[in-house]
Amino acid sequence: MSDLTLFFAPGTCAMAVQIALLEANAPFNARQLNLAVGEQRDPAYLAINPKGRVPALITEQGTLTETPALLLYVAQRFPATKLAPLDNPFLLARMQEVNSFLASTVHVSHAHGRRGSRWADDEQAIAAMQQKVASNMRDGFDQIERHYLAGPWVLGEQFSVADIYLFVVAGWLKSDGVELNEFPKVADHYQRMLSRPAVAKALAN
Amino acid sequence: MSDLTLFFAPGTCAMAVQIALLEANAPFNARQLNLAVGEQRDPAYLAINPKGRVPALITEQGTLTETPALLLYVAQRFPATKLAPLDNPFLLARMQEVNSFLASTVHVSHAHGRRGSRWADDEQAIAAMQQKVASNMRDGFDQIERHYLAGPWVLGEQFSVADIYLFVVAGWLKSDGVELNEFPKVADHYQRMLSRPAVAKALAN
Repeated sequence: MSDLTLFFAPGTCAMAVQIALLEANAPFNARQLNLAVGEQRDPAYLAINPKGRVPALITEQGTLTETPALLLYVAQRFPATKLAPLDNPFLLARMQEVNSFLASTVHVSHAHGRRGSRWADDEQAIAAMQQKVASNMRDGFDQIERHYLAGPWVLGEQFSVADIYLFVVAGWLKSDGVELNEFPKVADHYQRMLSRPAVAKALAN
Repeated sequence: MSDLTLFFAPGTCAMAVQIALLEANAPFNARQLNLAVGEQRDPAYLAINPKGRVPALITEQGTLTETPALLLYVAQRFPATKLAPLDNPFLLARMQEVNSFLASTVHVSHAHGRRGSRWADDEQAIAAMQQKVASNMRDGFDQIERHYLAGPWVLGEQFSVADIYLFVVAGWLKSDGVELNEFPKVADHYQRMLSRPAVAKALAN
């Protein structure tokens, strides 16, 4: 038995935390929510994460949420697998910069295609948001392709949780009407990620 | 002369980084952009931050962006002032959780009132987004009031960069049609922040 329990849903950003825990060889319990039937809004889950979102990670000290926070937590709690440059403030900031951009800009762009009702009640407005998803995702990945993927990994030679998060978000492109191959470096990175055992294990679930 | 140069604009989230640098007694050059005339899209600035946003921090090793990343960077680079619980993975994750929520949810809610054209081209859609800003900001601050402000500071007894970021975002409520006093703990926290010399100095600029 582990003292860590991850609440996640396949295909969501929470899969990044699942992969990070697998990369870290961390013992954890996985609890899958069915978002299609609204399990994230069940009172039992709202008692765990009052925001009604995934991911949430129950720890011995309390529950933590928000993907960038959880990714750094996994890296810091399981330092042996070196999932973050913890002792290099500049490189750690670069990692956080990429994670923050993915969370605050790219994920938000994606969410306007499926969860427009968060930001407007009007049906036409929600449709107008959907029309802009592909171009916004393209803009976000253009930034990543040109400026935030040193290669072979996000930070260069050092693999980190930013690679995991980028992989998960890049997996959304097709459903947003954007071809991964428009971004050759990101596409290469995606293939490189697919060959990692932790990723294969997460995708097999 | 300092080797750090911060590009910011008063009233934006970049002010959180400015305050953090002042709290840390860090030597830095401040460069103020006039967003009203679009200086953030000048080619000279796009060469510094291709995303065309503030904040951006030029360091000896390169330029960093994204508020949560910069806040952690300042705390890690100037550890003497203890602006983050760097050696406590759970508490650091809690700090990052709050910062990530402010960046990815609360700031995004706010941005729909002023920058709706990021997510839709249609004028009516942009107006529909504006109508939902107050309720979304209220929802975000309700979460903070109930779950993410241990008191007296975000993390309890330990002051951190999350307090600075919360202060800056709380300062946007009035312009979003929400009274700060709807959230007594946040309002108390805001007053406590106003009495800090670094905050007074940033506001006097």
